[in-house]
Amino acid sequence: MKLGTLRAGGRDGTLVVVSADLGHAVVARDIAPTLQAALDDWDRTAPALAELATALEAGSVEGRFALRIEDLAAPLPRAYQFLDGSAYLAHVERVRRARGAEMPPSFLEDPLMYQAASDGFLPPVGTIPVSSEEFGIDFESEVCVVTGDVPMGVGPAEAANHVQLVCLVNDVSLRNLIPAELAKGFGFVQSKPRSALSPVMVTPDELGDAWRDGKLHLPLLTWLDGERFGAPEAGADMQFSFHELIAHAAKTRPLAAGTIIGSGTVANQDESLGASCMAEKRMLEIIRDGKPSTPFLSFGARVRIEMLDGAGRNIFGSIEHVYEPYRR
Amino acid sequence: MKLGTLRAGGRDGTLVVVSADLGHAVVARDIAPTLQAALDDWDRTAPALAELATALEAGSVEGRFALRIEDLAAPLPRAYQFLDGSAYLAHVERVRRARGAEMPPSFLEDPLMYQAASDGFLPPVGTIPVSSEEFGIDFESEVCVVTGDVPMGVGPAEAANHVQLVCLVNDVSLRNLIPAELAKGFGFVQSKPRSALSPVMVTPDELGDAWRDGKLHLPLLTWLDGERFGAPEAGADMQFSFHELIAHAAKTRPLAAGTIIGSGTVANQDESLGASCMAEKRMLEIIRDGKPSTPFLSFGARVRIEMLDGAGRNIFGSIEHVYEPYRR
Repeated sequence: MKLGTLRAGGRDGTLVVVSADLGHAVVARDIAPTLQAALDDWDRTAPALAELATALEAGSVEGRFALRIEDLAAPLPRAYQFLDGSAYLAHVERVRRARGAEMPPSFLEDPLMYQAASDGFLPPVGTIPVSSEEFGIDFESEVCVVTGDVPMGVGPAEAANHVQLVCLVNDVSLRNLIPAELAKGFGFVQSKPRSALSPVMVTPDELGDAWRDGKLHLPLLTWLDGERFGAPEAGADMQFSFHELIAHAAKTRPLAAGTIIGSGTVANQDESLGASCMAEKRMLEIIRDGKPSTPFLSFGARVRIEMLDGAGRNIFGSIEHVYEPYRR
Repeated sequence: MKLGTLRAGGRDGTLVVVSADLGHAVVARDIAPTLQAALDDWDRTAPALAELATALEAGSVEGRFALRIEDLAAPLPRAYQFLDGSAYLAHVERVRRARGAEMPPSFLEDPLMYQAASDGFLPPVGTIPVSSEEFGIDFESEVCVVTGDVPMGVGPAEAANHVQLVCLVNDVSLRNLIPAELAKGFGFVQSKPRSALSPVMVTPDELGDAWRDGKLHLPLLTWLDGERFGAPEAGADMQFSFHELIAHAAKTRPLAAGTIIGSGTVANQDESLGASCMAEKRMLEIIRDGKPSTPFLSFGARVRIEMLDGAGRNIFGSIEHVYEPYRR
């Protein structure tokens, strides 16, 4: 099933079940008022939501309405946790190569992950306000999962049982703020502002064969100003599966229901498939030419991120934003 | 006024107004079911809660009951954001001196801050489960504020208007996991598990003259196994006020209501007042003797953190925990 959140009913919006083709929806308030409430009580709500989804698909449900993507908030307008990994080592290795550094061998065994902002996610379609182009505006196209309650100390095999939903994210990044911030040693605060989740989140069964071994085996499409920017295969070259990322996150503490775990920027060893962020394109230029020729984004840049199934159908809806100057 | 959360009524507990002496409480459900709900609608709820607090103090409120601290959850059992600063540079400088490094001059101007786990806070009294003593178990005694909605780009003066509540925290730290994690450059994930907030949060007016210039001017008391471990003055040597920390956090994004901002480990230039974490005691030993003589905590260690007002009254209640082995 596919779940979304209407921009109505308060800070956490209103939970809706969305049809497979994203064309219709029905309010699920009688089952759970919000997606977080559904995740808090998933054993009860998931079967009821699945039943509603079946009825919606059959066209036999009362309250069915034509869905406009622009009426959707982020599926979780705010969440208690977003832990973003960096599981595609082709990306990590290129970042380091561009600055003349080698990737430590430990990176093959020990996942990179940081605690990211989750107190607010941008609506899936709209604008992304940034105070200055000087910040080095960028996107990062990623896959995420949403967990149920995960006990402290789970291994990857057990973690597989705690993946409730899958979605996409644009992990908005301000590249020129990153070096100074990371040099302080405490990770990202100012350089990673609010991110944008895809219009809907889907249960793993909705993905069929494309979801296996804790990875999503489909190309992740990124479009910049209407042109295809990248289509790397999200299931390839992912050094750590989502199950391993969850186990890493839960080593010393439990994870609360509704925790979002990000894959990191999707990147393949095969450079011909394109990239999932401007920084990576620039790094390939640096490696090739000694300096980047592509600038970071200017205001007015339009970024679209989406994933199609084997039949060309949009799975999660498209994340689509124009970056614009922030004015109070 | 003082606000707390009963361990009843679901994941977010039940909001209670607590008497100034922490002896009594009254359920505030008619105003807001949970503290997060109160913060979400603070302009409406704060005056109503203050009125209830006045009635509670006068003994004239229906439903007044004797409060047992062990019935309290964390005031925010889960929160959407916890950004922890490191504003006491005496602490930062000693950490660096112990490893032979100097503190960069930029640290005087640019606050250290990291995105911390907020998806669950430990109850204020109880046990802290840790998988292994080999992790290097430690506490960090800190002051925190809770914000309302903070717009992107606020300056420190405006940030002052967004401080709704003040509390204490034990920022539980696993020291032996920190070096490898920070070396990866992405901040803390495994080395900073769930923290413990004080039994109650209080509005700044409750602190009288002790709250001024965005700092809390009272000693922060830490007790280890019943002996006084440290009593540094939280208002002294704090390089960045909470107003400056909020402005730093909000430079590139808004902060949602209920965001917790931590001061970092309270530490004074005057070493005679003691420390707020084991690591600092060990660093002073390293600086003096070339090696530490105090080990990190063993299972069974009991840590108490509290702050008394000028008349010796416990303001926030005591955070009190015994560290114990985690068993699933």
